[in-house]
Amino acid sequence: MADATIAAAEALEMMRRKNPVVHSITNYVVMNSTANVLLSIGAAPIMSHAMEELEEIVSIANSVVINIGTLSKPWIESMNVAARLSKAMEKNLVLDPVGAGATQLRTNTAHEILTQSTPTVVRGNASEIMSLAAAGGTTRGVDSVNRSDEAFEAAKSIAQKTGAVVAATGAQDFITNGSESYVVSNGHPLLSKVTGTGCAATVTIAAFLASDMDPCVATAGALAYFGLAGEHAAKNANGPGSFWVNMIDALYNITPDQLAREARIQPI
Amino acid sequence: MADATIAAAEALEMMRRKNPVVHSITNYVVMNSTANVLLSIGAAPIMSHAMEELEEIVSIANSVVINIGTLSKPWIESMNVAARLSKAMEKNLVLDPVGAGATQLRTNTAHEILTQSTPTVVRGNASEIMSLAAAGGTTRGVDSVNRSDEAFEAAKSIAQKTGAVVAATGAQDFITNGSESYVVSNGHPLLSKVTGTGCAATVTIAAFLASDMDPCVATAGALAYFGLAGEHAAKNANGPGSFWVNMIDALYNITPDQLAREARIQPI
Amino acid sequence: MADATIAAAEALEMMRRKNPVVHSITNYVVMNSTANVLLSIGAAPIMSHAMEELEEIVSIANSVVINIGTLSKPWIESMNVAARLSKAMEKNLVLDPVGAGATQLRTNTAHEILTQSTPTVVRGNASEIMSLAAAGGTTRGVDSVNRSDEAFEAAKSIAQKTGAVVAATGAQDFITNGSESYVVSNGHPLLSKVTGTGCAATVTIAAFLASDMDPCVATAGALAYFGLAGEHAAKNANGPGSFWVNMIDALYNITPDQLAREARIQPI
Repeated sequence: MADATIAAAEALEMMRRKNPVVHSITNYVVMNSTANVLLSIGAAPIMSHAMEELEEIVSIANSVVINIGTLSKPWIESMNVAARLSKAMEKNLVLDPVGAGATQLRTNTAHEILTQSTPTVVRGNASEIMSLAAAGGTTRGVDSVNRSDEAFEAAKSIAQKTGAVVAATGAQDFITNGSESYVVSNGHPLLSKVTGTGCAATVTIAAFLASDMDPCVATAGALAYFGLAGEHAAKNANGPGSFWVNMIDALYNITPDQLAREARIQPI
Repeated sequence: MADATIAAAEALEMMRRKNPVVHSITNYVVMNSTANVLLSIGAAPIMSHAMEELEEIVSIANSVVINIGTLSKPWIESMNVAARLSKAMEKNLVLDPVGAGATQLRTNTAHEILTQSTPTVVRGNASEIMSLAAAGGTTRGVDSVNRSDEAFEAAKSIAQKTGAVVAATGAQDFITNGSESYVVSNGHPLLSKVTGTGCAATVTIAAFLASDMDPCVATAGALAYFGLAGEHAAKNANGPGSFWVNMIDALYNITPDQLAREARIQPI
Repeated sequence: MADATIAAAEALEMMRRKNPVVHSITNYVVMNSTANVLLSIGAAPIMSHAMEELEEIVSIANSVVINIGTLSKPWIESMNVAARLSKAMEKNLVLDPVGAGATQLRTNTAHEILTQSTPTVVRGNASEIMSLAAAGGTTRGVDSVNRSDEAFEAAKSIAQKTGAVVAATGAQDFITNGSESYVVSNGHPLLSKVTGTGCAATVTIAAFLASDMDPCVATAGALAYFGLAGEHAAKNANGPGSFWVNMIDALYNITPDQLAREARIQPI
């Protein structure tokens, strides 16, 4: 545990020193809020979906985020191309399979990117991760005793099959590369009352990957940092509006030392 | 009046208990802010416009919102399909005719949805509602003495012709199903200094419809609740920025009891 | 200097009296935030990109903003048409060449609008303005001693070649029409930690142009006002989240008298 929290603090420090460029092809709902999260944590956001400029954009990015929250055909094509370019150029690739399981289009789009361009990290909520595992025929069936356990098993099976780090986030976050696994218990219930907080956690992971730490450790660190900001933000919040304002401030203000002291990351 | 305010409080309580899924095909400007409004009031937002997934999305929604604020051809097609699916699946359908009257494209798009897929509720400002009434040839002409009266007459004529509940909102909100009518006088001038507050009122109506109350009563209740949140938000606001933060907090915090006490809804 | 600050105050007062309609074809990331900036300063935002309604929309606008932050082919076509319509209808046209220099698509799109529909004002950061000057073959080469100087020289060469007012903004803002030039030194470092603050400065310029002041003077005034709001906003900010809330409040609250006293505009 001590190792993982110290690593989280180092990842935050290295990420901020690098000021990594994070390119997102993401949903319309969270473009503004995730750009602001990236700026507040010390990264540099770019949004671009035009096929004509993807190669140039990916080439200047440290990490690429594909978020399938508001799909349409031309955007899906751009996502696939950006994912392939990311792999070809050895960039960190992070997939956020928003709504996988809710519709065939979303499940298929996420599954295609997952299998054709192995992301560095996949982050989703429990049902999204379980849907992705089911789409690949890798669910363990009925041997899990609750939803968290099921999500963790689904995450492990995806990780083992694809080689991606998989994070199933919720009240507790499970992060696994298939052999090594962590549970992060930072966070606050108000995070579920603001739109796009999962998407915001995803871009935070993308930025942390630029620290060049091991992706599984960097992802656990990013989620602890993000959840800790939620805890700080809730202190003087009167509801979801002031909570989100405080959240951006907290992401900006949390120091590596604070993160080392307050992160709750456990190997499992 | 007492009946309508008590009904408003009940609608709020029933809506929150149900945590209704509200699917929006809406304009880019307000996607984030209306998603946050839905979360703060106790509903669950989904945004999706891809033709390929509309049937699955509408099927899991309690209410569907069509908002024409930033149109383009493929989006208009998706709006028409979503509106038809909503009717076929007996979902609550709410139309927000943003900018009707300003351009032919907007007037025609709104009029087509209004006449082909009778929304449960149409909410617009005075000029939008008057434009829609004129597009259907149902305006009463010059017999009204001011803009509010004109808007109310236009709302009544649309309601009588189509069977939709129509809300013409402004300093006072007029809600009518063609026979029964209400005026709501909650609200605050700062609501006009933040973008998308009309759109936010619309999604609040969509959520209230899931209470299964009479749509005319539920709409009046939703607008009283929304306006009341504006009054609470203004108390410690220094301008439109802090006002909107307070607004999200107020929508989250207002209880059914407060609404019963402070709602100003009158039958007319 | 005194003249320019007094002119800035007059432009603010005249703009607010007119409540100008500002039509934007802009990037998805900043649609909400720039609409809120326009409302807070006293202008009226419209967003529309549908070819079918551009003529009607431009005709009711006082100023038109073209911002190339998230391009795609149909949007580029709409931008070109809106730019041509703006010129034909003698509207104020403002170009924000977001990311010019980063990709060919952005450089070419901005350069095409710049040369085919001479904007009233072009506002970009140093590298965007230098890229645009280079795209037109008008850079002065290596005779400048630092990046600010280079940006100013690039701005002057574009202004002289095209007749547009050009603003290269940053820690200091340089505004020039090719012969007359100003430097504005209002602002705050937190402006660089919030997404779309450059885009927000651009729409503020578009609104100020509706004051019918000389465009070079109006642009300097708009940037002083915007930067001053940043200074006020920073006073009680705990980070970029509360800073932006305060910024909207400050834009709403700053009076022409305050601007006359606190604007730092110098002819150069």
